[in-house]
Amino acid sequence: MGLKEYFEDIATKVNSVMLSFLQGNIQELYGASRYLIEAGGKRLRPIMVVLAADILGGDQTRALLAGAAVEVLHNFTLIHDDIMDQDALRRGLPTVHVKWGVPTAILAGDLLHAKAFEILTESVKGLDSDRIYKAFSCFSKSVIIVSEGQAMDMDFEKRWDVKEEEYIEMIRKKTAQLFACSAYLGGLVAGGSEENLRNLYEYGENIGIAFQIVDDILGLTADEKELGKPVFSDIREGKKTILVIRALEVANKKEREVILEGLGSNDPVKIKETAQVLSSISLTYAQSLASHYYNKALSALNSVEAKNTKALEGLKEIADLVIKRRK
Amino acid sequence: MGLKEYFEDIATKVNSVMLSFLQGNIQELYGASRYLIEAGGKRLRPIMVVLAADILGGDQTRALLAGAAVEVLHNFTLIHDDIMDQDALRRGLPTVHVKWGVPTAILAGDLLHAKAFEILTESVKGLDSDRIYKAFSCFSKSVIIVSEGQAMDMDFEKRWDVKEEEYIEMIRKKTAQLFACSAYLGGLVAGGSEENLRNLYEYGENIGIAFQIVDDILGLTADEKELGKPVFSDIREGKKTILVIRALEVANKKEREVILEGLGSNDPVKIKETAQVLSSISLTYAQSLASHYYNKALSALNSVEAKNTKALEGLKEIADLVIKRRK
Repeated sequence: MGLKEYFEDIATKVNSVMLSFLQGNIQELYGASRYLIEAGGKRLRPIMVVLAADILGGDQTRALLAGAAVEVLHNFTLIHDDIMDQDALRRGLPTVHVKWGVPTAILAGDLLHAKAFEILTESVKGLDSDRIYKAFSCFSKSVIIVSEGQAMDMDFEKRWDVKEEEYIEMIRKKTAQLFACSAYLGGLVAGGSEENLRNLYEYGENIGIAFQIVDDILGLTADEKELGKPVFSDIREGKKTILVIRALEVANKKEREVILEGLGSNDPVKIKETAQVLSSISLTYAQSLASHYYNKALSALNSVEAKNTKALEGLKEIADLVIKRRK
Repeated sequence: MGLKEYFEDIATKVNSVMLSFLQGNIQELYGASRYLIEAGGKRLRPIMVVLAADILGGDQTRALLAGAAVEVLHNFTLIHDDIMDQDALRRGLPTVHVKWGVPTAILAGDLLHAKAFEILTESVKGLDSDRIYKAFSCFSKSVIIVSEGQAMDMDFEKRWDVKEEEYIEMIRKKTAQLFACSAYLGGLVAGGSEENLRNLYEYGENIGIAFQIVDDILGLTADEKELGKPVFSDIREGKKTILVIRALEVANKKEREVILEGLGSNDPVKIKETAQVLSSISLTYAQSLASHYYNKALSALNSVEAKNTKALEGLKEIADLVIKRRK
């Protein structure tokens, strides 16, 4: 079995676990909660969970449940983020609140949040009490930290003086924390040692930071159809992406004016000009920053005591996918 | 120490536990998440958790944490419910989304949801693995069931043929489940036997059903200042309360017309007429229904093997408070 089949096998199993937990009598609520999950997605986080268990030679059954828990949690955050950011498209489809209205979208997100904990409860059933404690602690703290990151992201929209250091802290919370928790959880349910868990956590966290930087880049460079959502929406929403932060640091007076006029604007001409300025100033820098975190992730991964070469190759492949992805 | 001091002592301790977990650097997010908790509330659920532990002679430290977890979870549901129902007042103050806007209110609710699980994780730390499993299973399933209840409640607003049986199912989910989980959790962390846990669960569930029926009654009869929110908002929102369901079953043609015109209306005259019709037809019936569940709760409570007479008296007092409350 090649890496592609290995990944597909995990994704198929995780999908089936998720759907088995997302059945209920209240049609609209459960339909809305399954919708985004059924729409697809790369399943990077649950694949990372299962590979992190496999690399330590652990039991895949628990890891598949833990992976499903993480992916369900991730989808809850997407549904609520789309309401907060007023985004109309996700994975090429209308977002949940556009299709069902805000009340049902809030409720579907809440349901997925609770379902994630329900699935995690099954994943760690019968493990020793200390490992269960660590799993729930990591999982609940992850949501707390992700919420803090979302709050920072929204606050940044109103500010013009966001520093790169603050940006990295924000994406560490908003995006990297759940990747870190994914790799950690996989290792944890596989019975991993403290040191292996620490290295897996660091691998996941740095992958997550690289992932978000690439996300910022794709918002500027990707093909709209491939991305499944409008390009330049970051500019329209006034998001302080790494491209904006870097550009505001080094731009000349004229470039700066273009950026200040384009960010948060609805004028397609101004938005396009801003995109061009950001590309010319910040693109190379952002790419090299993503590579930096990619390298840190691989270095942490190489310190994990791998019992399974294919899982090791798989975790390297995830790093490559994150850096090279086009959507 | 009298029952009043006993309750106040628990409430003070639970408040302090909750606030210790709700500190963070992101001022707006944490402020919004503490706001409703600091605004007050009766703390019936956490008091029930602690008394359920006390009645079995269990350790109060764990129960205070479990109580804080339940109350934080309850406040999360209130914040999100107020957004969904577009309610502007709660506990005499503007609701969270009115004060901070919908995005921050969604996020504050999500944060409390995760915080509830974080606090529960600390509450059960070091218990045997099976008891931890039961605690998380009950807690996550409660949020799932509460979400289902909220979905049913919203769906009922669009329907005219809701039967009393469906209404009871809805409030069992939306309101009674968390009371049931409260009494159960207190007994669980206190090391209670299966049978005592079953009786505590039944006590809590029936208290919860009585609580919601009384809530429906108060929406019609309470003093606006005492209630802390506008009276008749249930009528304005077209809620299918027990008073409406009963009235639609037995009303004559003219009364029926008044109700159909008043429900979901913004006309104060029509709303007041509807309130009068509901009072004359359904009030006595609703009160006797609440008494029925009150009696079921006391009967279950009397089957609990009480090691602590004061906690037993306290749990009876909660039942009395629920039936006799005016807000």
